[in-house]
Amino acid sequence: MGRLEEKAAPFLPRIPAQPIGYGEAQVILKYLGGNEVPADWRGILSNVAYRYGGELLNSSSIEVKSFNRLERRDTYNVIGIMKGEIEPDRYIVFGNHRDAWSLGSVDPTSGTAAMLEITRVLGEMAKNGFRPRRTLMFCSWGAEEYGLIGSIEYVEEYVKVFGARIISYLNVDIAVQGNHTVDIKTSPLLFDIIVEASKLVPSAYDPVGKTVYDKWVDFQWNNVTNEPKIAYGLGSGSDFFGFDQLVGSSNIDATYMFDHTYYKSLSSYALYHTSYEVFAMMKNFIDPNFTAHRTMGQLMGVVALFLSETPVLQFNVSRYTIALREAMKNLKPNNPEALDPLRQAINDFGATANDFMRRSKLIDFENPFNIRAYNDQLLQLERAFLNPLGQGGDYTDFKHIVFAPAKGNQYAATGFPSVSDAVATGNSREIDSQVAIATYFVRGALSTLKEFDNFFS
Amino acid sequence: MGRLEEKAAPFLPRIPAQPIGYGEAQVILKYLGGNEVPADWRGILSNVAYRYGGELLNSSSIEVKSFNRLERRDTYNVIGIMKGEIEPDRYIVFGNHRDAWSLGSVDPTSGTAAMLEITRVLGEMAKNGFRPRRTLMFCSWGAEEYGLIGSIEYVEEYVKVFGARIISYLNVDIAVQGNHTVDIKTSPLLFDIIVEASKLVPSAYDPVGKTVYDKWVDFQWNNVTNEPKIAYGLGSGSDFFGFDQLVGSSNIDATYMFDHTYYKSLSSYALYHTSYEVFAMMKNFIDPNFTAHRTMGQLMGVVALFLSETPVLQFNVSRYTIALREAMKNLKPNNPEALDPLRQAINDFGATANDFMRRSKLIDFENPFNIRAYNDQLLQLERAFLNPLGQGGDYTDFKHIVFAPAKGNQYAATGFPSVSDAVATGNSREIDSQVAIATYFVRGALSTLKEFDNFFS
Repeated sequence: MGRLEEKAAPFLPRIPAQPIGYGEAQVILKYLGGNEVPADWRGILSNVAYRYGGELLNSSSIEVKSFNRLERRDTYNVIGIMKGEIEPDRYIVFGNHRDAWSLGSVDPTSGTAAMLEITRVLGEMAKNGFRPRRTLMFCSWGAEEYGLIGSIEYVEEYVKVFGARIISYLNVDIAVQGNHTVDIKTSPLLFDIIVEASKLVPSAYDPVGKTVYDKWVDFQWNNVTNEPKIAYGLGSGSDFFGFDQLVGSSNIDATYMFDHTYYKSLSSYALYHTSYEVFAMMKNFIDPNFTAHRTMGQLMGVVALFLSETPVLQFNVSRYTIALREAMKNLKPNNPEALDPLRQAINDFGATANDFMRRSKLIDFENPFNIRAYNDQLLQLERAFLNPLGQGGDYTDFKHIVFAPAKGNQYAATGFPSVSDAVATGNSREIDSQVAIATYFVRGALSTLKEFDNFFS
Repeated sequence: MGRLEEKAAPFLPRIPAQPIGYGEAQVILKYLGGNEVPADWRGILSNVAYRYGGELLNSSSIEVKSFNRLERRDTYNVIGIMKGEIEPDRYIVFGNHRDAWSLGSVDPTSGTAAMLEITRVLGEMAKNGFRPRRTLMFCSWGAEEYGLIGSIEYVEEYVKVFGARIISYLNVDIAVQGNHTVDIKTSPLLFDIIVEASKLVPSAYDPVGKTVYDKWVDFQWNNVTNEPKIAYGLGSGSDFFGFDQLVGSSNIDATYMFDHTYYKSLSSYALYHTSYEVFAMMKNFIDPNFTAHRTMGQLMGVVALFLSETPVLQFNVSRYTIALREAMKNLKPNNPEALDPLRQAINDFGATANDFMRRSKLIDFENPFNIRAYNDQLLQLERAFLNPLGQGGDYTDFKHIVFAPAKGNQYAATGFPSVSDAVATGNSREIDSQVAIATYFVRGALSTLKEFDNFFS
């Protein structure tokens, strides 16, 4: 079968890279002879000037011995399935990768522990006769750290199956990096389900009776909306990427966090991706009695069962109205009126979403055809935000027009990434063009929420 | 809202074009002073040499007075909907355009007459209490002759609604161009339904009791398969294009033909797109008592009701195995082994399709969830052949990998068009690449037909 030659692959790196310690960096910086860099390019090492490079002082040279080698290795995805009894063709999918930079007691093994605990409990339930209403899948991915390879290959191979059938993908990669508060990134549609689940699950290292939700009240609260802070949009940082951008399911990524109010400058745990990610670190410093792991298993397990067992899915489409408005907030074109078509489309989306929810109260959900038709609308809403052409050029995989990596930030999710990139260029024609595309997809999405015989009104 | 400027639109023609009669062409050809063209470039005008152009003889000049003008005009799609009673979110869609090159008694009005006759009959049925199980739509498109504008704009606007919900689009454009035999182009999945319908409908201008099917036995019969000849793949010649390539529904285009065994050199009726397409032509020469129109209305009406009323859709997935094999036949690379991966995938598709049909006999279709899950697989099979990126570059709208226009023939449907185009280049790497893409989609399609909890075996 046709296979791109290695030398023709545009994304493989050409420049050798070798991580070094800061002590060595300090020495090398001292020997650089180039001009000093601007202030905002400077790092935090002391007693050293940051320079552009240039000749090394005293005709010095640096010898780099790298023991990296290029080789072809096999990797495996391991998939477990519990077939749904009533709707076997609707999937709730758990996933985490199995490979680690070194030993990976946090990334990925804390997630794998939580996921395996969920399978153990479901196994016990199955022995007592439990069968899920919808199909549950458990995926252990290979080669995530090398570019999400295992999960993306799998998603690509079965994208037509998944595009039609997956309701949600629940990612549990770095499940436990702290023992203070649960931190979630999600599709807006799952907000209410997550909140309900959080009220049922005990918070770790807290007094008996205190729930994950209660902890959010104390430490992660939005005083304006009077609700927990839960972030929308996932990005490209773990295996949810393929499900977000190619499948279009409504997905979650969750982690048990350290106290952000105390460790203010840390975006993730300090020993992330280092050789110090060993069992002793987890046992001694993060989760000594493993109750944070248990909480994550319980929380994600309850979310999954809400998704798999409720005949009528509890997606709240009005959460997407809020999310669309939030996503627009980061867009600051010189001419603010350039955003008017998108703003108007979002307002129309809001009115349609409200009407959809009002009408949903009148549906006879004893009728399976009505359940199915309604759930299909919810399942397909997220898909409606996928642009088949993605961001074009080398970025056709960035398909979600509301939450996806932007060219200017390929790791995190940016609100309306293509519009954001266009605003960064300052080119008003490009801004108009990207606003038109985003507007088109928002209007396409709202048409899926209208009445079946009146979608074009 | 952002709108491409007219001068920036890459597809608007830059060279003025003026149709002329053959008498004038003959005169102009006689005055051309260039070299003679090769034999296979010559037309059929007599007493004239065909030349490349060059200087006009005797310093002559040609004055062209063109009264064409560029102006912006409004056009309208007129849509009627009959809401489905049980599955309102599944659509069977009729469509035809309303605009004509001049008066258009054949193209499009014969189709419009047939479609309106169907709506009249359904209206009568509705007065007697009939409600369709699924939703029926009737679309009268504007501006087809200018580039399928009405239908494609509509499909683009609601592509997320249609992608999830349309089962079939039935095109009735040139419904009656003769009075001899019905000629159909279709998705392979509808073959059996069309054959069943043809056995119920009287053939026009034939003895009482003779059906459309009987006429096929006489004049349009495949002696190898012992079945009627029905062509697969529609192309870009009418409003089915958007449904074929952007929606991915399983579609039909039908026409009442003249006798091809007699008028051997005619690919369509002689006065196609001329000013002679008037009512008198239809009344005097094609369908004097309008029974061909009636037959077309009856045939397409019965097909539509099979699609809208049968709880379990009667799509035959094994027809796609045959169609895939046929589509491969036009591919003749210098190295025939280049096609092996695709051939193997098609064989695997065949085995999976057979297994799917075997298993379908065991399904409990009293259970609405089972009906819905099974029908969804049938509805989505055609979608599985859509490449979101299409043929790339300027051809992203050519998305169906099995039946679509090729770059080398943008009007008709070509089997595996991108592979066909690659074979035409002779570039073996390009052939391998396109075979790999086609193989990927065939394998993706077959995975949708596997068991819900075993799609990856």
